[in-house]
Amino acid sequence: MKRADSHSCVNAYYMSIDDTIIPAAREDIGFFIAFEGIDGSGKSTQFKLLMESLSQRGADPLGGKEPTSDNPWGLRAKEIGRSGRLSPLEELRLFTLDRSYDVTRHILPALEAGRIVVRDRYIISSLMYQGALGISRERILTVNSIFPWPDLVFILELPVSEACKRLTLRGSGLDTFEEEDFLERAAAILDFFSLPNMVRIDASRDKESLAAEILAIVLEKMA
Amino acid sequence: MKRADSHSCVNAYYMSIDDTIIPAAREDIGFFIAFEGIDGSGKSTQFKLLMESLSQRGADPLGGKEPTSDNPWGLRAKEIGRSGRLSPLEELRLFTLDRSYDVTRHILPALEAGRIVVRDRYIISSLMYQGALGISRERILTVNSIFPWPDLVFILELPVSEACKRLTLRGSGLDTFEEEDFLERAAAILDFFSLPNMVRIDASRDKESLAAEILAIVLEKMA
Repeated sequence: MKRADSHSCVNAYYMSIDDTIIPAAREDIGFFIAFEGIDGSGKSTQFKLLMESLSQRGADPLGGKEPTSDNPWGLRAKEIGRSGRLSPLEELRLFTLDRSYDVTRHILPALEAGRIVVRDRYIISSLMYQGALGISRERILTVNSIFPWPDLVFILELPVSEACKRLTLRGSGLDTFEEEDFLERAAAILDFFSLPNMVRIDASRDKESLAAEILAIVLEKMA
Repeated sequence: MKRADSHSCVNAYYMSIDDTIIPAAREDIGFFIAFEGIDGSGKSTQFKLLMESLSQRGADPLGGKEPTSDNPWGLRAKEIGRSGRLSPLEELRLFTLDRSYDVTRHILPALEAGRIVVRDRYIISSLMYQGALGISRERILTVNSIFPWPDLVFILELPVSEACKRLTLRGSGLDTFEEEDFLERAAAILDFFSLPNMVRIDASRDKESLAAEILAIVLEKMA
């Protein structure tokens, strides 16, 4: 799993100014992968399968899911899903504090040590979910502009009706992030932006062929 | 040092939207004080004297200086002062990552435990110094909007020529943050904004009377 030197020019932070995306070079030597998509799209399954494949190949990937469980803001952000919503800006603050903690404590140190980092949800989830509450893309990108942008962002695409069917089959009941009209708004946001290193994947296929495609893309990009 | 219940409505996060400052209640029970001003204004001296007075009165204040020395971004931000500047956005990113680490690791846990937190430099330093590099007040406030806003922000006011004289007398030589025309721009920014809980102090007086006035204001606000 050697890394081509030319890869480093892809690694970047992205800050938006007046809707223009400004890249700034990332100085670490790691490789950063994020999975994004609406609930029920199979993100968490693909995250796990990729972590397994990378480990089997001798890598030592650092995995993690947002919101996290290792700081008070991540725990509160999770709680919102069960107990009802805060104001949009308060929700953005909570998810961003959680990400601040995760990035400074885990993600950047791992990337600077040259490790592979994989996240189940990251900045695009804020664009989708806090965006669906009415906060502008510009504001969400600005608040997140201090965090490293991933080398690969897999967007698992699935119709909302199909995702809701899967969530209902799981039998866990829909939480406030999973109500169908809210998911429709979040999915619509996802359809209409293009950010660097995004790879859109048809998530309606069986999970094994999906996992094989994702692994192939990762290995090719890291080669 | 008991806290009036009515005080909690002052504690807030401040987010700006289209130049309007939007407060959101802080949920902690701590008390947060920041010292701001140009280099040479006597901030660090007043910070130390206040920390001593609070400790003598039996409080257990958490003190700290920005940029910090306990994470890689704070250390790099300090380094800029000696080795020359980065791009404005890169500099904003570095100082904000340092603050993210400090807020999630130290400041918020202390405030949530009900402690007094005192910082030598905080968000207003970003408005002054990254602002002097050309980044807008709106952008700097937005990037910082996830961090708690202090209950008191002391602005130590001193003419730049006077501050430069003091810096030269110290004999340490001026670093890139301390060049006179850069300080002039930073000071001009400081003159033209008003943010919540700001108290402007004439820093040309002797340090003992200054310290007595600052302590009196702190005790009154906490009463």
